[in-house]
Amino acid sequence: MAPAGRPGAKKGILERLESGEVVIGDGSFLISLEKRGYVKAGLWTPEAVIEHPDAVRQLHMEFLRAGSNVMQTFTFSASEDNMESKWEDVNAAAYDLAREVAGKGDALVAGGICQTSIYKYHKEEARIKKLFDNKAVWAAEVLKENDRPVAVTMCIGPEGDMHDTTPGECAMRLVKAGASIVGVNCCFGPETSLKTMELMKEGLERAGLKAHLMVQPLGFHTPDCGKEGFVDLPEYPFGLESRVATRWDIQKYAREAYNLGVRYIGGCCGFEPYHIRAIAEELAPERGFLPPASEKHGSWASGLDMHTKPWVRARARRDYWENLLPASGRPFCPSLSKPDV
Amino acid sequence: MAPAGRPGAKKGILERLESGEVVIGDGSFLISLEKRGYVKAGLWTPEAVIEHPDAVRQLHMEFLRAGSNVMQTFTFSASEDNMESKWEDVNAAAYDLAREVAGKGDALVAGGICQTSIYKYHKEEARIKKLFDNKAVWAAEVLKENDRPVAVTMCIGPEGDMHDTTPGECAMRLVKAGASIVGVNCCFGPETSLKTMELMKEGLERAGLKAHLMVQPLGFHTPDCGKEGFVDLPEYPFGLESRVATRWDIQKYAREAYNLGVRYIGGCCGFEPYHIRAIAEELAPERGFLPPASEKHGSWASGLDMHTKPWVRARARRDYWENLLPASGRPFCPSLSKPDV
Amino acid sequence: MAPAGRPGAKKGILERLESGEVVIGDGSFLISLEKRGYVKAGLWTPEAVIEHPDAVRQLHMEFLRAGSNVMQTFTFSASEDNMESKWEDVNAAAYDLAREVAGKGDALVAGGICQTSIYKYHKEEARIKKLFDNKAVWAAEVLKENDRPVAVTMCIGPEGDMHDTTPGECAMRLVKAGASIVGVNCCFGPETSLKTMELMKEGLERAGLKAHLMVQPLGFHTPDCGKEGFVDLPEYPFGLESRVATRWDIQKYAREAYNLGVRYIGGCCGFEPYHIRAIAEELAPERGFLPPASEKHGSWASGLDMHTKPWVRARARRDYWENLLPASGRPFCPSLSKPDV
Amino acid sequence: MAPAGRPGAKKGILERLESGEVVIGDGSFLISLEKRGYVKAGLWTPEAVIEHPDAVRQLHMEFLRAGSNVMQTFTFSASEDNMESKWEDVNAAAYDLAREVAGKGDALVAGGICQTSIYKYHKEEARIKKLFDNKAVWAAEVLKENDRPVAVTMCIGPEGDMHDTTPGECAMRLVKAGASIVGVNCCFGPETSLKTMELMKEGLERAGLKAHLMVQPLGFHTPDCGKEGFVDLPEYPFGLESRVATRWDIQKYAREAYNLGVRYIGGCCGFEPYHIRAIAEELAPERGFLPPASEKHGSWASGLDMHTKPWVRARARRDYWENLLPASGRPFCPSLSKPDV
Repeated sequence: MAPAGRPGAKKGILERLESGEVVIGDGSFLISLEKRGYVKAGLWTPEAVIEHPDAVRQLHMEFLRAGSNVMQTFTFSASEDNMESKWEDVNAAAYDLAREVAGKGDALVAGGICQTSIYKYHKEEARIKKLFDNKAVWAAEVLKENDRPVAVTMCIGPEGDMHDTTPGECAMRLVKAGASIVGVNCCFGPETSLKTMELMKEGLERAGLKAHLMVQPLGFHTPDCGKEGFVDLPEYPFGLESRVATRWDIQKYAREAYNLGVRYIGGCCGFEPYHIRAIAEELAPERGFLPPASEKHGSWASGLDMHTKPWVRARARRDYWENLLPASGRPFCPSLSKPDV
Repeated sequence: MAPAGRPGAKKGILERLESGEVVIGDGSFLISLEKRGYVKAGLWTPEAVIEHPDAVRQLHMEFLRAGSNVMQTFTFSASEDNMESKWEDVNAAAYDLAREVAGKGDALVAGGICQTSIYKYHKEEARIKKLFDNKAVWAAEVLKENDRPVAVTMCIGPEGDMHDTTPGECAMRLVKAGASIVGVNCCFGPETSLKTMELMKEGLERAGLKAHLMVQPLGFHTPDCGKEGFVDLPEYPFGLESRVATRWDIQKYAREAYNLGVRYIGGCCGFEPYHIRAIAEELAPERGFLPPASEKHGSWASGLDMHTKPWVRARARRDYWENLLPASGRPFCPSLSKPDV
Repeated sequence: MAPAGRPGAKKGILERLESGEVVIGDGSFLISLEKRGYVKAGLWTPEAVIEHPDAVRQLHMEFLRAGSNVMQTFTFSASEDNMESKWEDVNAAAYDLAREVAGKGDALVAGGICQTSIYKYHKEEARIKKLFDNKAVWAAEVLKENDRPVAVTMCIGPEGDMHDTTPGECAMRLVKAGASIVGVNCCFGPETSLKTMELMKEGLERAGLKAHLMVQPLGFHTPDCGKEGFVDLPEYPFGLESRVATRWDIQKYAREAYNLGVRYIGGCCGFEPYHIRAIAEELAPERGFLPPASEKHGSWASGLDMHTKPWVRARARRDYWENLLPASGRPFCPSLSKPDV
Repeated sequence: MAPAGRPGAKKGILERLESGEVVIGDGSFLISLEKRGYVKAGLWTPEAVIEHPDAVRQLHMEFLRAGSNVMQTFTFSASEDNMESKWEDVNAAAYDLAREVAGKGDALVAGGICQTSIYKYHKEEARIKKLFDNKAVWAAEVLKENDRPVAVTMCIGPEGDMHDTTPGECAMRLVKAGASIVGVNCCFGPETSLKTMELMKEGLERAGLKAHLMVQPLGFHTPDCGKEGFVDLPEYPFGLESRVATRWDIQKYAREAYNLGVRYIGGCCGFEPYHIRAIAEELAPERGFLPPASEKHGSWASGLDMHTKPWVRARARRDYWENLLPASGRPFCPSLSKPDV
């Protein structure tokens, strides 16, 4: 990876995508930091940016090392309705952390905004505008292009959103509203999210619209999800372990996303740093370089070639891992669940 | 958790166990840091203690926060045959990191020693003695009791070791050789390791010997392991995701270990910080306190009681998670594998 | 079951359906007789009607006893292109057997016709007309209503047939061509077939057409089928055992078919006599009587109430079997397959 | 198969085994006839031999055709305590049916005796002797060698019987009591039963005893059975479908039994005629001939070579079926169960 030079000198997100670069997103903060002991499941607020900045910084560092080109601010649920007066400080601290780490590599900062119930319950437009106009959001480099936000992702699956809008229609509306980059994040696993992207792409093509595509799915296998995603699965959020994708699943996902024309490829809940590294390794031929963390990972398991057991050495090859059907070790458990809704 | 005072004032490991305390061990370093990008699978050496001390320190901190009373030095494979001249510096740095973090709470330091092939190949007793006599090992507080090592774990399962020695016999020999604490770590999942502990306990009882018991199993479900453990499973080491235990599996394990009379309870490969927290939460009634990280975890999922979806709120109860049979989301995969050996 | 009187006195198929009766079909001949040793898998021809009439008669008897109101002639593939000159004798013998057994109870005879490649390869209309005009076909009581055939089923799933015709369209065309009873048989399991029936029903309703509905699915679970059905599953035809439906699955299917408005309910490949009995038992409240074979079956497992083991006696109740998730005993096998096409 | 000549001219069971022949047993009566509608689950009595002799005769015929050399009388539970005064007539009728069918091929008749509770509850030796001395038992050709019974099987698994007797000990006692042929039947699947046979064989070898070995396992996969066998599995008896062995599983079993030295190889509950045929086909090279029913079965699926779909034709080969891991089509079900005891 070439030195990134001064942050100011970095290429912007649209510049990158328009020149054909593959941009690698980052991964899971809430679920990863919950497991590390810094986020409470349920409300899922990011006060850790103030309480335990070292832990948040370390996770940003791991994603940077794994190849991420975008540090999202850890600001999910950091809004007035979830955090009261603390929310503005949290946004600011989250931005500072993201910016600090982004400065250590070739990464931009993206302000993460999450859904709010303020409009639904209070109909106060001014409060919402303030919410979406704080330091973290507007300072974010990703969004600075021409002084306007450029990227939007939605949490929807192939069956569309709650108002029966199809993915194709959603994409059209977002682009018509000004988005230069559209896609989906969270709620569904890689396979389902790619199906949604295909529908978005078809929708845009049918309408004669153009946009860059981005995708940031769950790091979980969720073929049994209903329309509203993994929250309705009985395993959410404390029994999802056996659904976690392997690095090989993610390499497959990265390749398929690339083949579909998606050029901003990352992850969401459940995406650990090594999953991001798997994207960067899969697309290294196209991008021309490996991420820093690949110094600790032999491509296609080549690091096993010096294992003392010959049958483990025999696993140091691509087709072994591509064809492996990993067992769960849980013969009393089913392979699919019925979602609650 | 009461303030720990000066490290020198801490109670030693035997003092704790003899007074009936439950001691909580720590968890996975190699596999956790591999996923974070700091360890290379295959040789599994701990040079990260020098190259990326922040990452190692952060993981120690997470285990401390989760309730660990023992910080093991991250020195697995840090021996001459794996790391050449670097091994002594790595041992020293690993010790300093463990000691630094242990000083921030009520935790001791344990020097981790791993198997070596020096004896097998060189028969040089002097080199081995040097290997087992370095700073990390002898400075370790756990081992300072009466100036001698007191605890030993073995990587064996219920069928015993490679020389057809049963767990009961192994335990007897270790105690006769002077160990005050014996048990097993790594290579097998919680259920299998507890079966082994039962056999060790029976062996000691039959021989009229006494020792404290410790157990530090994998954080993976491995009912299909052969005699030499998880390394021989086809999923090792890059396809183990769907075998990872839930926190509820670990609470069950902690309770069963306690009921069996084991009082040093921790984990090994695959044991993430939240798994250690699960031990501390399960045994909080007996110990009288929760670990620091429980501020970010509602016991038995109580944090879900304010979720917006009523069916997710309905998961905020013990019997829901105790009875959940989590799906893998992988209908094309089997539930068990045939080990290579 | 009331005595059926002379065959000539039996109510015809349309008369039954128009008066609101539930008609129960029969089940599997090819696959059942293959397992009994009388049919060869691959070509699947019914020469057993001549070579081993006792075996065929016995199977008819079992279906009659289980509650079938229709004996289909065992004439699948009994056409010129599969059986050469023998085909006419086979049709005649099959008819005689079906008629003989039907005469022993309240059952009609239906002439089974199967697809032929004569038109595709030879375009000879006369030969096809002859094929569809033989003794078995035209003598069949089911078809005698007003001297014309009245019932047609197709082997299609929810995604329609090979020419991209939807189930709704197929149903419309069949009714417009004169069919009084339409439905699907074979190729897909109960759940999939009921989805197809729903689409057929909707298609007819949209077009303002009326017809009686019939369904005769596989006795196998096939959620993973592609568009052309179970033949493309890797387990076809010699590894389908673990997909066989339980009697409880079939009771559920019968109830759902009934609720959907289907009144001719039977089975196809994989449907053993006890599956047909399960339909008759589930719908006994509506029909007012049990089939003869229920003398050897306690409804909802009540026959277990005198078992010597108390835990087996405890299984003599409806909710036990309704909620059972039966294990395959095959932990090394997946739960779904990828079809070849 | 050579003509069998007069029954009287048939070789006896010991003569066959002593000359090195492989004797093929028969299979499932109770469970098969329950599915056909002639036996009631729970009490499992064989009154069908009187009520529906055609159905019983047909099943005997199918086993004979599949290659069985021994027709067991269908007399399970046909004792005074289960059938009252009827029991003697049932035994007589069962014998007549078995003898009639045996006379049509190269098969002997074996009198099936099942456990009785008379001794346990009444301690009346005379009644038991009478029970074991009826027409079916003593007329049975299998038992006529030197006017004494020669073969005994037990329903035990590798962990032995309820009085903690190991399989090795059981075998020793049976041989010391005069049995020339010993083995196991029912209660456990093929794999488990072969493990038991291995232990029986070792027990006899250790004791310096000799006997012919026989095995007649379930046609179900039951790796999760407890000590008392499949009755304790939650699926017994109405949810065992997904555990049924394929013909390929049975060919594997037959080969392994042969390699272990077992020469009387058959089946018990769940063993359908095609499973018996699979034994006869697997051992055809050793025996020198195929059974009659093989005229309807191409070895290793060769009958598929003329299928219209090329991917089905591609299944007409041995390694396809040997390596197939058949899916259950039940993604919501587990692969193993916990037995009730």
